[in-house]
Amino acid sequence: MATKWTYGFADGSAKSVELLGGKGANLAEMTSTGLPVPPGFVITTEASNAYLDAGELPPGLWQQVLDQVARLEEERGQKLGGASNPLLVSVRSGAAISMPGMMDTILNLGLNDESVAGLAELADERFAWDCYRRLIQMFANVVLSIDGEIFEDELDAEKRRAGIINDQDLPAESLMKLVDSFKATVKEQSGAEFSQDPLEQLKLAIIAVFASWNNRRAIHYRQQNNIPDDLGTAVSVQTMVFGNMGETSATGVAFTRNPSTGAPGLFGEFLTNAQGEDVVAGVRTPLEIDHLADTAGFEVVSRRLHDIANQLEHHYRDMQDIEFTVQRGELFVLQTRTGKRTGQAAVRIACDLVDSGLIQPADAVKRLEPEQLDQLLHPMIDPEFEPDILTTGLPASPGAAAGEIVFDADEAKRRGDAGDAVILVRRETSPDDFHGMVSAQGVLTARGGMTSHAAVVARGMGKPCVAGAGELEISHADKTITVNGRVLTAGEVITIDGATGRVIDGAAPMVEPQVGGDVARILSWADDIRRLGVRANADTGHDAEVAREFGAQGIGLCRTEHMFFGDERLEAIRRMILAQDSTERRAALEPLLEMQRQDFVEIFRAMDGLPVTIRTLDPPLHEFLPHTDEELQEIATDLGVDVDVARNRVAALVETNPMLGHRGCRLGISFPEITEMQTRAIFEAAVQAQNEGVAVTPEVMIPLVADVNELRLQRETVDRIASSVFDETGATIDYHVGTMIELPRAALVADQIAAQAEFFSFGTNDLTQTTYGLSRDDSGRFLPMYVERKIYPVDPFVTIDRDGVGALVEIAVERGRGARPELKLGICGEHGGDPDSVEFCHLAGLDYVSCSPYRVPVARLAAAHAALAFPDS
Amino acid sequence: MATKWTYGFADGSAKSVELLGGKGANLAEMTSTGLPVPPGFVITTEASNAYLDAGELPPGLWQQVLDQVARLEEERGQKLGGASNPLLVSVRSGAAISMPGMMDTILNLGLNDESVAGLAELADERFAWDCYRRLIQMFANVVLSIDGEIFEDELDAEKRRAGIINDQDLPAESLMKLVDSFKATVKEQSGAEFSQDPLEQLKLAIIAVFASWNNRRAIHYRQQNNIPDDLGTAVSVQTMVFGNMGETSATGVAFTRNPSTGAPGLFGEFLTNAQGEDVVAGVRTPLEIDHLADTAGFEVVSRRLHDIANQLEHHYRDMQDIEFTVQRGELFVLQTRTGKRTGQAAVRIACDLVDSGLIQPADAVKRLEPEQLDQLLHPMIDPEFEPDILTTGLPASPGAAAGEIVFDADEAKRRGDAGDAVILVRRETSPDDFHGMVSAQGVLTARGGMTSHAAVVARGMGKPCVAGAGELEISHADKTITVNGRVLTAGEVITIDGATGRVIDGAAPMVEPQVGGDVARILSWADDIRRLGVRANADTGHDAEVAREFGAQGIGLCRTEHMFFGDERLEAIRRMILAQDSTERRAALEPLLEMQRQDFVEIFRAMDGLPVTIRTLDPPLHEFLPHTDEELQEIATDLGVDVDVARNRVAALVETNPMLGHRGCRLGISFPEITEMQTRAIFEAAVQAQNEGVAVTPEVMIPLVADVNELRLQRETVDRIASSVFDETGATIDYHVGTMIELPRAALVADQIAAQAEFFSFGTNDLTQTTYGLSRDDSGRFLPMYVERKIYPVDPFVTIDRDGVGALVEIAVERGRGARPELKLGICGEHGGDPDSVEFCHLAGLDYVSCSPYRVPVARLAAAHAALAFPDS
Repeated sequence: MATKWTYGFADGSAKSVELLGGKGANLAEMTSTGLPVPPGFVITTEASNAYLDAGELPPGLWQQVLDQVARLEEERGQKLGGASNPLLVSVRSGAAISMPGMMDTILNLGLNDESVAGLAELADERFAWDCYRRLIQMFANVVLSIDGEIFEDELDAEKRRAGIINDQDLPAESLMKLVDSFKATVKEQSGAEFSQDPLEQLKLAIIAVFASWNNRRAIHYRQQNNIPDDLGTAVSVQTMVFGNMGETSATGVAFTRNPSTGAPGLFGEFLTNAQGEDVVAGVRTPLEIDHLADTAGFEVVSRRLHDIANQLEHHYRDMQDIEFTVQRGELFVLQTRTGKRTGQAAVRIACDLVDSGLIQPADAVKRLEPEQLDQLLHPMIDPEFEPDILTTGLPASPGAAAGEIVFDADEAKRRGDAGDAVILVRRETSPDDFHGMVSAQGVLTARGGMTSHAAVVARGMGKPCVAGAGELEISHADKTITVNGRVLTAGEVITIDGATGRVIDGAAPMVEPQVGGDVARILSWADDIRRLGVRANADTGHDAEVAREFGAQGIGLCRTEHMFFGDERLEAIRRMILAQDSTERRAALEPLLEMQRQDFVEIFRAMDGLPVTIRTLDPPLHEFLPHTDEELQEIATDLGVDVDVARNRVAALVETNPMLGHRGCRLGISFPEITEMQTRAIFEAAVQAQNEGVAVTPEVMIPLVADVNELRLQRETVDRIASSVFDETGATIDYHVGTMIELPRAALVADQIAAQAEFFSFGTNDLTQTTYGLSRDDSGRFLPMYVERKIYPVDPFVTIDRDGVGALVEIAVERGRGARPELKLGICGEHGGDPDSVEFCHLAGLDYVSCSPYRVPVARLAAAHAALAFPDS
Repeated sequence: MATKWTYGFADGSAKSVELLGGKGANLAEMTSTGLPVPPGFVITTEASNAYLDAGELPPGLWQQVLDQVARLEEERGQKLGGASNPLLVSVRSGAAISMPGMMDTILNLGLNDESVAGLAELADERFAWDCYRRLIQMFANVVLSIDGEIFEDELDAEKRRAGIINDQDLPAESLMKLVDSFKATVKEQSGAEFSQDPLEQLKLAIIAVFASWNNRRAIHYRQQNNIPDDLGTAVSVQTMVFGNMGETSATGVAFTRNPSTGAPGLFGEFLTNAQGEDVVAGVRTPLEIDHLADTAGFEVVSRRLHDIANQLEHHYRDMQDIEFTVQRGELFVLQTRTGKRTGQAAVRIACDLVDSGLIQPADAVKRLEPEQLDQLLHPMIDPEFEPDILTTGLPASPGAAAGEIVFDADEAKRRGDAGDAVILVRRETSPDDFHGMVSAQGVLTARGGMTSHAAVVARGMGKPCVAGAGELEISHADKTITVNGRVLTAGEVITIDGATGRVIDGAAPMVEPQVGGDVARILSWADDIRRLGVRANADTGHDAEVAREFGAQGIGLCRTEHMFFGDERLEAIRRMILAQDSTERRAALEPLLEMQRQDFVEIFRAMDGLPVTIRTLDPPLHEFLPHTDEELQEIATDLGVDVDVARNRVAALVETNPMLGHRGCRLGISFPEITEMQTRAIFEAAVQAQNEGVAVTPEVMIPLVADVNELRLQRETVDRIASSVFDETGATIDYHVGTMIELPRAALVADQIAAQAEFFSFGTNDLTQTTYGLSRDDSGRFLPMYVERKIYPVDPFVTIDRDGVGALVEIAVERGRGARPELKLGICGEHGGDPDSVEFCHLAGLDYVSCSPYRVPVARLAAAHAALAFPDS
């Protein structure tokens, strides 16, 4: 049997996307559903591949095309190239995997010097000649490879001659002249006349679309997106329909439900006697879709559209976005696709569809995108508002905030505490700015990436942050920001949008978070589905409470160093750091013990019944050091030494690469009294809370372990101090000791380390830094360029790098569980709140993810998505 | 059959070290060789284990001991505890694996109130009573666990009473009194008399030695050295012989060849009528062994000793170190072991033994330790000299050097170039100090580890360096060093010993390197044996020549950035770094092109016919930046900008963690014009050299690749520029493009990277830093403590960490070769010259190691050792 190279839309519905391409299969499916789709046919990907292999159309193809055209002509009662009521078609590419804009399309095919008159009869002269000049232009460009600029120049020249600015104002006479001049250009450039034979037009167009599979941008796109080169493209040939053929024609767009709110009922707009382009050009104001029923001549069409909307929702079991055209009273559906929607609408629609029995709860969970959910958890800029954008930085912590520019953390605290809305603007933030960040509405930095100090701390607080806005030039001396030639002064109001990275002049109107009961419903369905546990990173009792409200099942990371950032505490820790010997150090630690114990009691209370993982001191000590001469003088006075002595002691602590320096367990091993104090604070707090009736399960976590001996030594200290506290108090606490896996070596020797660890928590921030040899503090100078140019497929600080960092996690899981099958495994890096990374954690077989309190709902949803996509992991 | 728990020395020779312990097996072997060993027997490790399990001597053991003692008494014609001519024995532990000093020994066993008189008859009264009081003291301590301090106090009191300072001056009467008082002490402390029954003494001593297997220091030692706890210890019981029984007795030590020079002929010394301790105490001056033949009564003994020496060398096929005693004309060999020797002696002896047919060339190679060879390649401090050691730092670059203290690199250059010997003393060095290091005799730093800038650069130059001497306090203002309370001023002379880390006051006498023809012979044998290639890291034509003389088979790493440290070049590169755009940058690169081209031509000439691997620019740019205000002013003038502008531009380049910052291929991707310039310099130089008749094979190496896309982009640049140069010159050069594997991610995705790389070179310095999350610049604050406490089993910057870094290398080898079987693999980190790391490279299947020119011979030897130890890798 001869190969079947073409399928009419009506008989292609059972054929695969591989054969018909995405667009062709979709047209076939709509047609078979009984929708009034403008008729047409699909030429298969096999035909395209055969052409590309042989360099000529495969035997039989052209005859099949002719048969299909004949069928269309018969069905529509029109003729391709006919002098009256002519049939026009579009020729479009359509691969199995969408490659938007990469390949070529030709519209209005079938027009020639005769049929243009026929089209003018049906619509109007201007329109017909505009279609004709567009066809020649497109055909010349796509089929004959003539530089499009030449035609644009001629068009511009004609507009100047006619004294006209917009294309759509060109009169028919001008367009006729342009057709002549375009035809002359074609002759001149290609050596041949623009073909007046519609079938020759069609054949050449089909060949050109086949060939466009191998144009440079398509090849590049496939490389970038890992699309195989041998898929080939299908070609759809479809009858053109027009909404501008008089007062019974129209064009419009309809959503089957409100895409902003999710409310049921058709939503959209239409224009009579118009084409889709007219809506875009804004020449006339479209009407709301409700008015279709009131519009003379469209009563039946309106009913039919409602029916179709209903039918489509039932067929696709989701809200649809429908493009339609009415040609002389005949309704055509041009396209239907799942409608885009806001987070709020997504939640409502999903719940409504569950309630109507159209989908299952798991489908509702599947359809809510994590980023849509995240939208709902933060205030956002009114989507209707058109902002004056100063610059765009990194979307470092979601939510929007407006406030006066403040450059100094102290001032931010003072003003913020006084009730003013301020945005703290810094080149980059440091722990010294913490109090200012707490009191500001949001944070804007010129340097630093998605995991810079500003970003991490802001996300932890659920506070909007735009980081690394590199175009900002900040002058602290002048108290000004210069950005793209504009100067803003302290006190002027800006708005930052942490969801998009936009920095906006003035105060943008906000939409408050919409967390209704429907969100809770979907999240509870998600909880039923997911296998991964979700914990939160929280350092205070308050954060722990917030986390619990958001559904956290424990604390996965309590950073004890964040507790040191109060004024009084900073002083104490500085004394500790600058101590010259163990005795001085113990004395300095004494007051910190009191403070930390109280912090831990509050956290234990908030997490009653849930595990709390507490990490011992981690950062390089010099993070706590003074930066200014004044602070240095204070410290010198405090220590009772000369300011030069203090300066020397501080200088001795400065490191070339602090990230790879004297930090983490290296501190606890060099200065065991630090670990001793922290352990004592944890267990005294645990006993106190337990005595109050709180159920406590502390998990002590040792950071930056590279070798099992480090963990062994620190574990000995923890066990020893825990026993002392139990002896002193007569109480016993169930506790665990484990470690961060945040260095490549730790992952590689995880079997050895597991012998000393009851749990692993992957610190994927540091693991990413060391695996890539990439400092997140310094990456701003090239990482954005790398991500933009896809040198790195993703920003590895945002989404876990599965090939590298992920491979180490997998090695550690395998070796760790091999040595200790009951080993508990979690992740507490920033990735714990990133949906793609959560999926990875699910696949890697971790027990839980831990993220900032405000990301907990997102992580719950993402974990459910992962479980739905990979039920066997 | 009853278990055999004991073996006479004469019938134990076929038994294993596991059963008899190292010492016991050795005594048995010597006895069976026909050597006159004082007779005795060994109690097996099985007996010890049986005792330790059961808590009592196993059945049959004691009877076997009695039988062995009876045999000894018969053989020697003596009786244990006899009133005349008494038999005395030693009881010693001896495990299968040597644990020196960890377990207990008892000498002179068999003495009691009667036999002491018998011993006095044989030797003299003083000696006999001294032996007796020693026995009681040792027995009390080892068997009865009485604190040894008590006896020392009594001894001191007696010395005071007798008005005597040295033990050996105590008269017999005093010793008799001490024996009485020691016995009283034993009674008082243990509740029982010191046993007068020699067999009871023996039984208790055997049990005590058994039990010493489980004393605390032995357990700790086994833990530290990974020795299994269930080996148990054997016990040797051996007849005591004495060299102090009159004028026909003597004691001595003999080497079968000269251990300093390796010259043939017996070498050593002896004392008549003396014990080994007398030699140590220095009471009398021993005579050279040659005089033994002239000494009355020793003619026969001398001949016998020469015969034995010869016999032992033939038996052990190596130079022996023999302890002997002559008791009343009868020669006994107490011990023989392979003699320690200098590097020079090792080489000569090995060659002589090959020439005499006693060993094969492979044996000669095996016996030369890499560190002995290294000694030969550098001047060293006269081993006879006793230096006044100021402090000890890290042995960062071998060789010794003396010179005046200089604190400033400019001064070091000026003075050094003027012919003065100076030692550059810095807190730590930076690229700015390079010119000073070149002109100094050696370098001493207070900070930094084995792979600090000072250490790496000094090793590269083959210049002595002591790094990280933490006790040094350097005051640049006062131009003084303070160390342990001593103050040295600029201009005073010190000596540094880069082989041991010693810093010595004054000029120590030196021994010049002794690289005779024998070294070359052994190295050529090594070359026949090794599988690994050996290349050198060299950045100049001069270094390349040196490397080739030392036997390098190519350049494994040419660091292009080292070429930038000349004055004029530094200026040019600073202009390049501070350029504001691509045009400025290209202009700044122009003069660098000329300079680099000339450098490469010289290197290609030196390596005619051998491959040269050139790495594109690697370090963080700010390494080249100015540090002082003067330099800043110069640059500002040079750039024609205000000094504040220059300062801001410099400040913008400062990084938090430069090691993880904008460096390596990230520079070449951000600023392609840098890679373009360097590639052009390489290929223009290659063409020029080829036109001169030089055979060139450039290998262009891209640093710090984390993702294959980085390599792809840089490779495209290299290939493009290479083609242009070929087009311009009409020449073609065979070249290769590859990458460093120095980030964990690169190792993990080595299969992807191999698609773009013709070779991998493991940069294990950076790979160690990232795998451990450990900055070598900052590690000085805790790494020495870590290594000392064995928290890390080795300093991973000195010896490759096989479990972590090595695991990544193995992963990369497997994945890389899996994707591209012909992939060439090498290592160019500092580890390339470390013998243990070279062994790892052999095992991992690499093709070559590359190290500093001066380490090339060591690497050749180490590679041969690895091939001998693991012939199948």
